[in-house]
Amino acid sequence: MFKLIKKEKKRRVGKLYTMHGSVSTPFFLPIATKGAVKNLTPEELREAGAEIILGNTYHLWLRPGHELISKAGGLQKFSGWNGPILTDSGGYQVFSLAGKRGNQGVKLTERGVEFCDPTDGKKYFMAPEKSIEIQLALGSDIVMVLDECPPYPCTKEYARKSLERTTRWAERCLKYFKKRTQSEKFKMQNDNAKFKNNRPLLFGIIQGSVYKDLRQESARQLLELDFDGYAIGGVAVGEPREKIKKVLEWVLPLLPEEKPRYLMGLGRPEEIAFAAKSGIDMFDCVIPTRNARHGSLFVRKGIRRLAEGGKRQFYQAINITNKKFKNDFGPVDGHCDCYTCRNFSRAYLRHLFSVGEPLAGRLATLHNLKFYLDLMGCLKK
Amino acid sequence: MFKLIKKEKKRRVGKLYTMHGSVSTPFFLPIATKGAVKNLTPEELREAGAEIILGNTYHLWLRPGHELISKAGGLQKFSGWNGPILTDSGGYQVFSLAGKRGNQGVKLTERGVEFCDPTDGKKYFMAPEKSIEIQLALGSDIVMVLDECPPYPCTKEYARKSLERTTRWAERCLKYFKKRTQSEKFKMQNDNAKFKNNRPLLFGIIQGSVYKDLRQESARQLLELDFDGYAIGGVAVGEPREKIKKVLEWVLPLLPEEKPRYLMGLGRPEEIAFAAKSGIDMFDCVIPTRNARHGSLFVRKGIRRLAEGGKRQFYQAINITNKKFKNDFGPVDGHCDCYTCRNFSRAYLRHLFSVGEPLAGRLATLHNLKFYLDLMGCLKK
Repeated sequence: MFKLIKKEKKRRVGKLYTMHGSVSTPFFLPIATKGAVKNLTPEELREAGAEIILGNTYHLWLRPGHELISKAGGLQKFSGWNGPILTDSGGYQVFSLAGKRGNQGVKLTERGVEFCDPTDGKKYFMAPEKSIEIQLALGSDIVMVLDECPPYPCTKEYARKSLERTTRWAERCLKYFKKRTQSEKFKMQNDNAKFKNNRPLLFGIIQGSVYKDLRQESARQLLELDFDGYAIGGVAVGEPREKIKKVLEWVLPLLPEEKPRYLMGLGRPEEIAFAAKSGIDMFDCVIPTRNARHGSLFVRKGIRRLAEGGKRQFYQAINITNKKFKNDFGPVDGHCDCYTCRNFSRAYLRHLFSVGEPLAGRLATLHNLKFYLDLMGCLKK
Repeated sequence: MFKLIKKEKKRRVGKLYTMHGSVSTPFFLPIATKGAVKNLTPEELREAGAEIILGNTYHLWLRPGHELISKAGGLQKFSGWNGPILTDSGGYQVFSLAGKRGNQGVKLTERGVEFCDPTDGKKYFMAPEKSIEIQLALGSDIVMVLDECPPYPCTKEYARKSLERTTRWAERCLKYFKKRTQSEKFKMQNDNAKFKNNRPLLFGIIQGSVYKDLRQESARQLLELDFDGYAIGGVAVGEPREKIKKVLEWVLPLLPEEKPRYLMGLGRPEEIAFAAKSGIDMFDCVIPTRNARHGSLFVRKGIRRLAEGGKRQFYQAINITNKKFKNDFGPVDGHCDCYTCRNFSRAYLRHLFSVGEPLAGRLATLHNLKFYLDLMGCLKK
């Protein structure tokens, strides 16, 4: 299921096998929140170097619904992306989106979370088992347990209670997941021998906020349950960025070599480079795609610095809508060979943004994603 | 410059030679208002079968400005579209866009039109010579004269005065155009022998509203000036669609066989099929691209009917956002081989539209444009 091919100091290079093919690690997951990476086709994702994408359970559950996607033959068939897909549990969005209006709609109990769809007020109930049920219906290759992600800052008392609940929920998820995926019927449906894996993988999520003993306690509890991989959650929620390094320092030494590690929701290119060198195998983040839509583009500082994997500062972010690019007929990034840089100038991109042409966000997204995927390529060497 | 290859009854098949290559007629011009066909790359336009596109002088003049585009090496280099481009004169937009707020900003005199940019209130003055100057700076292959397009309905008195001014302006455009394009310097810059044409073409525009004698008078006056091609303007401005057939009936017999004819701003697929069979060679219209962005998609009624070129009703328009497509896992159009139909279902497109994913408009635009360009392919046989 996971093969460690090479280790260089703490950095790991490996291969993860899923129902829909294998993926080289470390990898970055472009985010297809609602079943599409904003602006891009599956073909373009492949061309940019993506091997796996992330779908959001919360969004797809509400619209168009997991039953519809299951009827379509899974998210792969529905969206035209024929590779592996990781799905989050939906928990994070329940709190951050459904709870936006002062949380009045979100009710958290031991059973699960009740919330209202902010769009139409319809009530939903997300239990750990429900999250797994939805993810399996979506045809997910990598399924995440439902966790509670505490905000930052949060008291140690709250963080402890929250991580203990997260462990109890993880246990329920695992039990339900095993019941569903060990049935002969499930195996028959997914018998894909060439990919060496005929069932989805289930990952546990380590919580514990910024407290060393809690993070380690969370890791130990999940290790005992024995998941296919381990994610570090509850980072990039507003804490000082230095704290993330600490969390990696506390947690990574406890994790087994033979299982993949996933740092959720992070981050800037230098953070990804650092974390990969600390031993993380998987990343996802909205930065490349979201920033692109606002005209913020990554530009390499020479080609070698990126290849060195972030030893020195290896990029700068430019805002293409800036007036200084009005007459700049050079490419966004002279060291990039993405479709955008091969065919268009900074002046043209700036124009497209300034008149609100939909092609703007598309060309920018293509470029930023290529930058991230090229960085991952360097970190794989 | 124009070669008539075949004539079948009144339908004409030919070839138009421009500075940036030749185009088979009859053809349809996808509209790149602000220097990009909304949502699409030049590569996709080519793949869909486009050979020439239309840029809007009004929009490009105001933003980013014709000087900037000239500095970039023309609209071709700026936008990445390396084929022929036709530019309108900007006149139509001056009246329809700048004049939107009760016309208080638009002042029409014999010299030209003064107007304010509705975005920032900046004043502009568009004279016939100015329109040509801008179009030449954009690097246009087919330049249109500045005309006054009367609204519908309009009195015969107004229509006569307007068409007479249009002729006087056409004469000024022609004079300025010749002065600029006959200079040795211009020819040196554009010496492109393989395309058999080293200068842009200039088209006159026939006006005269829905009055037979005025339409014919306008045609005769412009014929006397001798343009490279003739456009029929002032249609699709709100008049009953039957009137368009009348206008074609009145005007087309007066036009010389050896020059291309362009019906501006039209139309629905059946109108284009009819007009091509009446002897029109060139079309442009926002329908395929604009409708696509609102989820209105063209579906062939069997593959043969389209090939027959519109003898019987050959398509239907569906609104993909309709609830009935929620569970429809078939392609938008089973007879279409566009990227959208090859890879995605109606259910997926409906989902993308209903959650506001930017990919929705893109996939829809690709399909509708392919439908129009396939229709042109059938009309070329």
